[in-house]
Amino acid sequence: MPSEELVRRYAELAVRVGLNLRKGQDLQIICHVEHAPFARAVAAVAYAHGARRVSPFYSDQHIRRSMLEHAADDVLEWSPPWTAARLEHLHEERGAELGITGDPNPDINDGIDGKRIARARPKELMHRAAEIIFDLKTVNWCNVAYPNEGWAERVFGEPDVERLWDLVARAVRLDEADPVRAWEEHMARLGDRAARLNEQKFDAVRFRGPGTDLEIGLLPGSVWGTAGFETSYGHPFVPNMPTEEVFTTPDPSRTEGTVRATRPFGPLPGTIVDGLELRFEGGSVVDVRAEQGADVVRGQLENDPGAARLGEIALVDGQSRVGRLDVVFWDVLFDENAACHIAYGKGLPDGLAPGTDGANEASTHTDFMIGGPEVDVDGIDADGAATPILRADEWVLA
Amino acid sequence: MPSEELVRRYAELAVRVGLNLRKGQDLQIICHVEHAPFARAVAAVAYAHGARRVSPFYSDQHIRRSMLEHAADDVLEWSPPWTAARLEHLHEERGAELGITGDPNPDINDGIDGKRIARARPKELMHRAAEIIFDLKTVNWCNVAYPNEGWAERVFGEPDVERLWDLVARAVRLDEADPVRAWEEHMARLGDRAARLNEQKFDAVRFRGPGTDLEIGLLPGSVWGTAGFETSYGHPFVPNMPTEEVFTTPDPSRTEGTVRATRPFGPLPGTIVDGLELRFEGGSVVDVRAEQGADVVRGQLENDPGAARLGEIALVDGQSRVGRLDVVFWDVLFDENAACHIAYGKGLPDGLAPGTDGANEASTHTDFMIGGPEVDVDGIDADGAATPILRADEWVLA
Repeated sequence: MPSEELVRRYAELAVRVGLNLRKGQDLQIICHVEHAPFARAVAAVAYAHGARRVSPFYSDQHIRRSMLEHAADDVLEWSPPWTAARLEHLHEERGAELGITGDPNPDINDGIDGKRIARARPKELMHRAAEIIFDLKTVNWCNVAYPNEGWAERVFGEPDVERLWDLVARAVRLDEADPVRAWEEHMARLGDRAARLNEQKFDAVRFRGPGTDLEIGLLPGSVWGTAGFETSYGHPFVPNMPTEEVFTTPDPSRTEGTVRATRPFGPLPGTIVDGLELRFEGGSVVDVRAEQGADVVRGQLENDPGAARLGEIALVDGQSRVGRLDVVFWDVLFDENAACHIAYGKGLPDGLAPGTDGANEASTHTDFMIGGPEVDVDGIDADGAATPILRADEWVLA
Repeated sequence: MPSEELVRRYAELAVRVGLNLRKGQDLQIICHVEHAPFARAVAAVAYAHGARRVSPFYSDQHIRRSMLEHAADDVLEWSPPWTAARLEHLHEERGAELGITGDPNPDINDGIDGKRIARARPKELMHRAAEIIFDLKTVNWCNVAYPNEGWAERVFGEPDVERLWDLVARAVRLDEADPVRAWEEHMARLGDRAARLNEQKFDAVRFRGPGTDLEIGLLPGSVWGTAGFETSYGHPFVPNMPTEEVFTTPDPSRTEGTVRATRPFGPLPGTIVDGLELRFEGGSVVDVRAEQGADVVRGQLENDPGAARLGEIALVDGQSRVGRLDVVFWDVLFDENAACHIAYGKGLPDGLAPGTDGANEASTHTDFMIGGPEVDVDGIDADGAATPILRADEWVLA
């Protein structure tokens, strides 16, 4: 097990850098029952930093499994009024929200039909949550992962929690003497990359590699940014720890070609998608293949009209702390930061210039990795000229 | 650890006899994080019995401890809107609610001021919850205890969960070949006692023993009943497992004399009150003494005007399955069923004839044990004549 000191330092980092918690703020912690030790550490740190009230919301994957086995279809999609009340409080009080990831029971949904898993989500609530988080921006939020036995077992084939802590600590810069300062420097470096991309005013981005020849058009308002976010009232926070990406919001109608995922991923709790291949025409997915989990992806894409169009392009190079660990974490918060990725589903307003629109609309947002040493990334001008951005996993755009 | 089969049978008993769950009903499970294994067993059984949706609500005593250490006074009393929404859903949908007891962290509040602990409760919500549960009666509910290490450590001085399971199983009749039938017979026996008491139409009840000489007046509408409850729409359920009592709701203005608790108890999570002595005048507590925890009781009595008057009298004889285990469980669900007890605070409408009133009003209801082999219990007629009910722990009222 990790030292109490390590857990406390991690909690400090999440509260101070990730959430950048304000004095007098309410904090909601969203996690699984198995994350309780970390939720407790975060609560103690948050109160010490002046939180008004810390409220944990624990979910239970086992009880959810029973629901998936037995409940009627309409129950799977139901939005509980208590979760709505939680969200509205967060919004009205300009609260902070910490999400804890690190799946404690990766096999929990074995044997459940993929389409049923994809259907089992509170549609109304997810729409409202996305509105509050991404459009109204009243909440400073952050996702961090908590190493646990189930997750370690999934990553290493054995419940080596110690080893997972070591990797996670390196990924989130807890191995630095002053992690808070290390994060400031890191975010500045990523900010510099975003600035260079914005200078170029590319019209599209092209990925080419084994199984991949994909061109994604950008919007006139597409801007490149980092996970250095701000609330509507100007309060900065870092929503993902780790983060290694610069990203933008593409034109949902201008994706053409084929793409092969370079890493497996788990789009929904307990699911695995491996060897995904998508073909796009006129912006939309028209063909889904995979060695494993194609039904889960198809279920997601059928959920609403926008689900089969792209909402994000993110660029990550081989210097990524996550990528250099060379491990599949089965946790999107980590795996998306190992390599370039794109997301089908909702487009983030943060990837658009203020006052512009055109981002894809959908209730979900699923990232999957398409980058790696064999995948070249180019920026394409309006006249079709290509400028190299990444070659052999190295950032080459000056 | 208990066998999976024992846990499943216990869950069955809670769902079938305790809640008497209806097909298509929503079930809410209220418990601590440490109760998750039992919550999961209950959810599986409930879905198998046709529950529409099972929703667990986990609380975290460690995070609550941080709140008690740091939060402002008004935060301690705050009623979260999400809990209000949960309650209203339960009420509107005529749902079922299972509470799981068995304190996993009995020492969690060590060092926190007793009055602060007493203050830390969502007053508005508790009032509304009591209204829904006891006045509107739209919910079939049940409290059961789940053996765990912390609770076992508190009971035995060592975390002997196996031994605690053995005692709990005997108390709730899981040692019977057909526990469901054993419960039917048991509830019929208690019902018979209540009927005999109601025939007598006593005007008061008197307790006399070491340190105790207490007379509690009854209301014209006071009726004796068992924990065989019914919802407003006539659906029967058993809210406490175990239950060994017959009870009534007394006249809150007519308690006189002194009473000494015969067992220690924990009125609020993490608290211990031992050697409690109360003196009553004109229905109200006028003096509080205790070897331990007097401040917790005083804090409760100050919470609202009705807190210092009685809301319940319950009679339990030496045949009680709980009493015969001869263990202090530090859990009111068990300990109150070991001996006669009274409660300061809210009077239950279930102890009054329909259409009558006069029950004490308060936001809390705290039971403590005053019976035992040395305490005689008499029924007193309107003309002052005494009729023995209990002598030397034996039921003597014919």
